Amino acid sequence: MRRVYFDHSGTTPVHPAVAEEMYRYLTGENFGNPSSVHYYGLQIKKKIAEARDKLAQALGAGSGEIVFTSGGTESDNMAIHGAAYTNRNKGNHIITSAVEHHAVLNTVKALGKQGFDITILPVDRYGMVSVADVAAAITDKTIVISIMHANNEVGTIMPVAEIGKLARERKIIFHVDAVQSFGKIPVLVDEIGCDLLSISGHKIYGPKGVGALYIRKGTRWKQSLFHGGAQERLRRAGTENIPGIMGLAKAVELVTANLVQESARLKSLRDKLIKGLTSRIEHVSLTGHPTMRLPNHASFLFKYIEGESMLLSLDLKGIAASTGSACTSGSLEPSHVLLAMGVPPEDAHGSLRLTLGKDNTEEDVDYFLDVMGPIVEKLRDMSPLKD
Amino acid sequence: MRRVYFDHSGTTPVHPAVAEEMYRYLTGENFGNPSSVHYYGLQIKKKIAEARDKLAQALGAGSGEIVFTSGGTESDNMAIHGAAYTNRNKGNHIITSAVEHHAVLNTVKALGKQGFDITILPVDRYGMVSVADVAAAITDKTIVISIMHANNEVGTIMPVAEIGKLARERKIIFHVDAVQSFGKIPVLVDEIGCDLLSISGHKIYGPKGVGALYIRKGTRWKQSLFHGGAQERLRRAGTENIPGIMGLAKAVELVTANLVQESARLKSLRDKLIKGLTSRIEHVSLTGHPTMRLPNHASFLFKYIEGESMLLSLDLKGIAASTGSACTSGSLEPSHVLLAMGVPPEDAHGSLRLTLGKDNTEEDVDYFLDVMGPIVEKLRDMSPLKD
Ligand SMILES: Cc1ncc(COP(=O)(O)O)c(C=O)c1O
Ligand SMILES: Cc1ncc(COP(=O)(O)O)c(C=O)c1O
Repeated sequence: MRRVYFDHSGTTPVHPAVAEEMYRYLTGENFGNPSSVHYYGLQIKKKIAEARDKLAQALGAGSGEIVFTSGGTESDNMAIHGAAYTNRNKGNHIITSAVEHHAVLNTVKALGKQGFDITILPVDRYGMVSVADVAAAITDKTIVISIMHANNEVGTIMPVAEIGKLARERKIIFHVDAVQSFGKIPVLVDEIGCDLLSISGHKIYGPKGVGALYIRKGTRWKQSLFHGGAQERLRRAGTENIPGIMGLAKAVELVTANLVQESARLKSLRDKLIKGLTSRIEHVSLTGHPTMRLPNHASFLFKYIEGESMLLSLDLKGIAASTGSACTSGSLEPSHVLLAMGVPPEDAHGSLRLTLGKDNTEEDVDYFLDVMGPIVEKLRDMSPLKD
Repeated sequence: MRRVYFDHSGTTPVHPAVAEEMYRYLTGENFGNPSSVHYYGLQIKKKIAEARDKLAQALGAGSGEIVFTSGGTESDNMAIHGAAYTNRNKGNHIITSAVEHHAVLNTVKALGKQGFDITILPVDRYGMVSVADVAAAITDKTIVISIMHANNEVGTIMPVAEIGKLARERKIIFHVDAVQSFGKIPVLVDEIGCDLLSISGHKIYGPKGVGALYIRKGTRWKQSLFHGGAQERLRRAGTENIPGIMGLAKAVELVTANLVQESARLKSLRDKLIKGLTSRIEHVSLTGHPTMRLPNHASFLFKYIEGESMLLSLDLKGIAASTGSACTSGSLEPSHVLLAMGVPPEDAHGSLRLTLGKDNTEEDVDYFLDVMGPIVEKLRDMSPLKD
């Protein structure tokens, strides 16, 4: 059967060069603990430093500003928790948006139960946070703002640079979850004007179980989640995931080298897909912003169908897609992102997300468009939702 | 140059079969996100379930009792933090020992600043916690006891089964850090009688950046560190580290299959090393318990020498060793473990740890014994510590 993977926002295949790089650090003499002061430890210490340089360069940051983590979720948690507690003496107000990933949203909500005041900003019908809303929410007690760069469910790109400006003027720590944007659009910490920024390996053809947190020099931030050894200059305890870190650095190198061309290529595939689908099928609408969206990201609402049924039907045709986010797949609750965008709960179940990647071709899009028509027709015929 | 790796408590080389297994999940179609409801996701979900079964079996646990983490440090942190906060309504007293790894000790100390009462038990001159001390420390407010199975710096094996009995009688949650013991001596959760138990991949010829936490069914424990997606049945948010988890399971399988014979082999090498060193060199003493110690673990105090100088000299001869724990290597502070054992600070700097592993041979021990004599002699001649 033809297999088409359209779920790159869920996770990506590991780039073969990344797998090779990791294998190198799973074999031979490359197994040392970088904290050890002997041959095996010292050579690995050098390698981590090189990996850190690569990440720093890609983000326009300094090497000392990069901390390796176990993934996007940990980066988000430790960024926000650390910033909140380190600045507790200055204030207790945290601002975020209603469409953040749960790694941010649930972290902020948990802090809301620990004596912090939280503001969860609404979004417009495109899933966009408004800069004016951020400005209006800021008080003298605001210590942290966390707004994602691009939304994972609907692909909308947020006005982070403008929010960064506001934050800087008011000396508020600005955290940006760039897990979905990094590797797809430029992510440069000085352009964004953020103090903390999260990335994850497995969204950029790198390994699962590794990510990074950028921490701007001088930021009042201290690790407050993990206690233990003095690794990562006291910013992340635990023996470093060497193969993961080396794989992440290789993935970052590959994805940034090729960013402009690959983005353009994906964008044209994405537009073909959006145009093809909305022109061939009735009662389908694009979700997220029509233009301010990730180049590889197409997300839709279908009337009178359940997203889950579409996934199953597509899977039978060899096409891997998602309803919204991998983490909430299989859950019966409607997407918090779509609800925040004003989609009625009964409609929110009809979501489908198609996210393209490096191995996708025009033929993949054609194949999808060919099989999708009959699937929708059949499901709608069977649907109790259609009167 | 001949290379001898005697730092297996710091980290271990990855077993070739583990590296192969991981590579399998870094290539081909094995990259899915287990939360995804399509071909790629579903097949990986099955594989994680198999890995979980393997770990459960090795620990004598049920599959539903195993949660994958990013390593021993995270397991320790989430075990203790979760147990403390989940049982905050029952009491606020936590008991641990002075010789725990910093992942435990610093976590407990941090809780001490968050409204918890903490008792840090002393140890005897062998680094052993006394069961009577634990019993005496328990109050009506005690909610968590965390005592390691075997100490990383001096190899002493603690009376965890007896402590487990006490804890069970008093309905106190018992956490055991088995990072060093697992794979070297039997670690069975029902024999130990623990509710929570931490292990780490990279100490058992598995990968860095992955570990597990055993959580006994029915334990009043909730995740309180990481917020995010619903992975690991709400017990650990974040996309699962698939290659790491598969590698960990393979490592667990290999290390447990071979436990008895390999332990006996290592024990005889260790005893040869201890005997050889203490008979050939003056002013050297074994640290830790003489018999209740890990089969691969030999640790010493040398008078009139700095441990760091020994490491450097050994490194020049191709021998990788440690002063105590990798995490604190390079720090100038004397070991908290040795101080707790009553070693005077000025003596504590003369520590050397030699921890053997699967590729070590009699010849390695002979080589070490041959080069160590002249090294000690030279260092002592130069030493300002010797009058
Ligand atoms: C926007 C966003 N933030 C955070 C995460 C979490 O990253 P990870 O899967 O590495 O834990 C994801 C992916 O699931 C994401 O899409
Ligand atoms: C006893 C003990 N606990 C916890 C840890 C931490 O484990 P990890 O290195 O996987 O974070 C170590 C190892 O460094 C250890 O020896």
